[in-house]
Amino acid sequence: MGAVDVPVALLGYGTVGSAVDRLLGDGAEEIERATGHRLRVVRALVRDPAKERAHGPGDGVLTQDFAAIRDDPEIAVVAEVIGGIEPAQGYVLELLRAGKPVVTANKQLVARHGDVLFAAASAAGVQLRFEASVCGAIPVIKVLREALVVSNVHRVLGIVNGTTNFMLTEMEAGATYGEALAEAQRLGFAEADPTDDVSGADAAAKMAILATVAFGSRVTFDDVPHEGIEALSPEHLAAARDMDLAVRLVGSATLLDGRMDVRVRPTLVDRHHPFAAVEGAFNAVMLQGDAIREITLEGPGAGGMETASAVVADMVSIVGTTGTGFLQNDACWRELEQLPAGELPSPFSLHLEVADRPGVLAHVAERLAAHGISVARLVQQQRNGAATLHILTHEAPIGHVDEALAEIAALPETGRPPSALAVVSDRGVPGLGWA
Amino acid sequence: MGAVDVPVALLGYGTVGSAVDRLLGDGAEEIERATGHRLRVVRALVRDPAKERAHGPGDGVLTQDFAAIRDDPEIAVVAEVIGGIEPAQGYVLELLRAGKPVVTANKQLVARHGDVLFAAASAAGVQLRFEASVCGAIPVIKVLREALVVSNVHRVLGIVNGTTNFMLTEMEAGATYGEALAEAQRLGFAEADPTDDVSGADAAAKMAILATVAFGSRVTFDDVPHEGIEALSPEHLAAARDMDLAVRLVGSATLLDGRMDVRVRPTLVDRHHPFAAVEGAFNAVMLQGDAIREITLEGPGAGGMETASAVVADMVSIVGTTGTGFLQNDACWRELEQLPAGELPSPFSLHLEVADRPGVLAHVAERLAAHGISVARLVQQQRNGAATLHILTHEAPIGHVDEALAEIAALPETGRPPSALAVVSDRGVPGLGWA
Repeated sequence: MGAVDVPVALLGYGTVGSAVDRLLGDGAEEIERATGHRLRVVRALVRDPAKERAHGPGDGVLTQDFAAIRDDPEIAVVAEVIGGIEPAQGYVLELLRAGKPVVTANKQLVARHGDVLFAAASAAGVQLRFEASVCGAIPVIKVLREALVVSNVHRVLGIVNGTTNFMLTEMEAGATYGEALAEAQRLGFAEADPTDDVSGADAAAKMAILATVAFGSRVTFDDVPHEGIEALSPEHLAAARDMDLAVRLVGSATLLDGRMDVRVRPTLVDRHHPFAAVEGAFNAVMLQGDAIREITLEGPGAGGMETASAVVADMVSIVGTTGTGFLQNDACWRELEQLPAGELPSPFSLHLEVADRPGVLAHVAERLAAHGISVARLVQQQRNGAATLHILTHEAPIGHVDEALAEIAALPETGRPPSALAVVSDRGVPGLGWA
Repeated sequence: MGAVDVPVALLGYGTVGSAVDRLLGDGAEEIERATGHRLRVVRALVRDPAKERAHGPGDGVLTQDFAAIRDDPEIAVVAEVIGGIEPAQGYVLELLRAGKPVVTANKQLVARHGDVLFAAASAAGVQLRFEASVCGAIPVIKVLREALVVSNVHRVLGIVNGTTNFMLTEMEAGATYGEALAEAQRLGFAEADPTDDVSGADAAAKMAILATVAFGSRVTFDDVPHEGIEALSPEHLAAARDMDLAVRLVGSATLLDGRMDVRVRPTLVDRHHPFAAVEGAFNAVMLQGDAIREITLEGPGAGGMETASAVVADMVSIVGTTGTGFLQNDACWRELEQLPAGELPSPFSLHLEVADRPGVLAHVAERLAAHGISVARLVQQQRNGAATLHILTHEAPIGHVDEALAEIAALPETGRPPSALAVVSDRGVPGLGWA
């Protein structure tokens, strides 16, 4: 790639695609300083080139002819910003097989079909980069792959869905679920059908990608159990307030004794944890590893310009490293087993409603102790002959907690079914003054 | 660089140097997967090769002979982890002139003599990388240069000194300055002579480096006015508590109308700002730019292994990009003027002690208004015929605030000299629910 002028192409010219075009134009000098090359969009694949566009590209750039991109030997990099599985997947595979490096912003594609895509990229000896597929402008993939290359990252925690984080901060401030969702929709943070966000599915796809890169072993969307925020009750939020904890939808990817656990669930967060300060539609990812202890990255997790910024950075990195062998392989190099369901340890916050009479607390404590669960903090509230117990436990495997709660639910003194939320507070970093 | 085996050398084999050696050994497979190469320390320059070392290198690695490193054509990269200006500077210049890429962890060297070093690197056409010179394991230089290449970063805020951040969090919890310093020294966060940390000089050197990279214009240590935490009074801390603000030593680098302002000063931080959650010896850097809005990176800012992790990442990036032209130039490409002293706008928290009698508040308000300073929030506390005023202002230039305070100090009703602390609260990000 000796030429100063580097023609590139886009698949899609919507919000993200037009922003990529604009950033490549406005940032041409910065890119030339970084790489010695100028990237110029010469083709963009769209369904209807005649459609009016606010930020129109240059004459003759828009095309309906995919082959004109695939077969143009001048085009050095292609960015896929269509989204969805098909036709995006077919296009990306054809491009890779034709020897073209590809940048994709498509989390569903990478999380569900990464194996096929990276195999094609490896076979052709070209790069496939995907920074924009997780957490918008936050460069977590670059940091994981390039800055933390020798850090043995063993845990990734993420607030990776901005819609639900916005809703949860609204709900903490007193809004109902319905009010929070309506406000998110009004501001454009949530789709008309918000299922993908509120069910945790969007976060699960992103955690699959992050876990794959962090651990070097393929994790697909189907490997990530996820609970969303739909089932969060006013009691959960009240319990969080009583214990001075924040509620967040947290994805966790954990490497434990050579096995992986990746999941998404509503989680209570210690007020001193960096995640408690992540408000509104922001995302944050905490990486814990041997050499680095922990690094947290926070920023906007979505938005056309933010996503385009990540796409452009990937294009620049490809142009800057082509021909070197640097990071041109699949991030996966091993096959780790999954940790059996129920074995991941975590502190939990338990919410119990019991009859307010002597001996009840002893019965509850006995059931917890029988499953090896020790209590770190207990808050009891009386009302009308009933008591509400908020119990913060030390680390215990999920499975043990579920068993203990099932037994507690069966006690004659127990009212509504007890519930449990995982808690994040374990920084354990010297100098922070808390464990 | 076609060979799989890449001999490298170290200048210095202390805490950081031996950790680099260890990480290169332990991480050899990860590095080979990322680059196709294995990095192996073949020489390490030390003053006394016979000294006992906990983590000794291989036989024959330690040497007192700098020329044996400079003149060995096999050695592909050298990491300077000696620290201090000389002899480090002389060595680095000789290496660059001899055509060897260099990685340095030396903030004083880069902040004071970056111009000479980068000129030598450019002339020889080799890379000089310096990630480890700021904020330990936090990959802020890589993020600025590679991920945010087209983002027009116009502001960098940093908690870049872990010692003072540790002391401030201790002082917020009730410790005196002396107690906090003693505890920091006991835990190894502060040197026996803590001047460099508590005066803000260490933070100023790091902000000079960050500003240089963010704005592409050389900022040296001498360009960065700095106030440390020595002058922070118990009144400041009490005022912060009363206004529910956190106290942090914040470096700011601001690009305003094509001119730069870089400074370090004690600052009050809104509880909702990510910096308020940065506790203990941690560092954090917030990058604000056009395409990305803002990205915050938080992590350990010091430590042998953490710093070594950044050194290794730089070595890996050099090996991965040699021969491409990618990021091999000086980050500086323009010469921006400095903003005249006094012109940088910020919200401020003013602390005034005045006589508690009618008309005093009017006089104070009049002096503020005369300098265009508008009041956002005011808390008044009475005691023994005197009143303490905590005033939170909207954004105003430092110079105007200083002038207004000088006039207020001259009022007959004013007791002790009034003081002002800058305030950070301006995220202004949609969806966060506060400005």
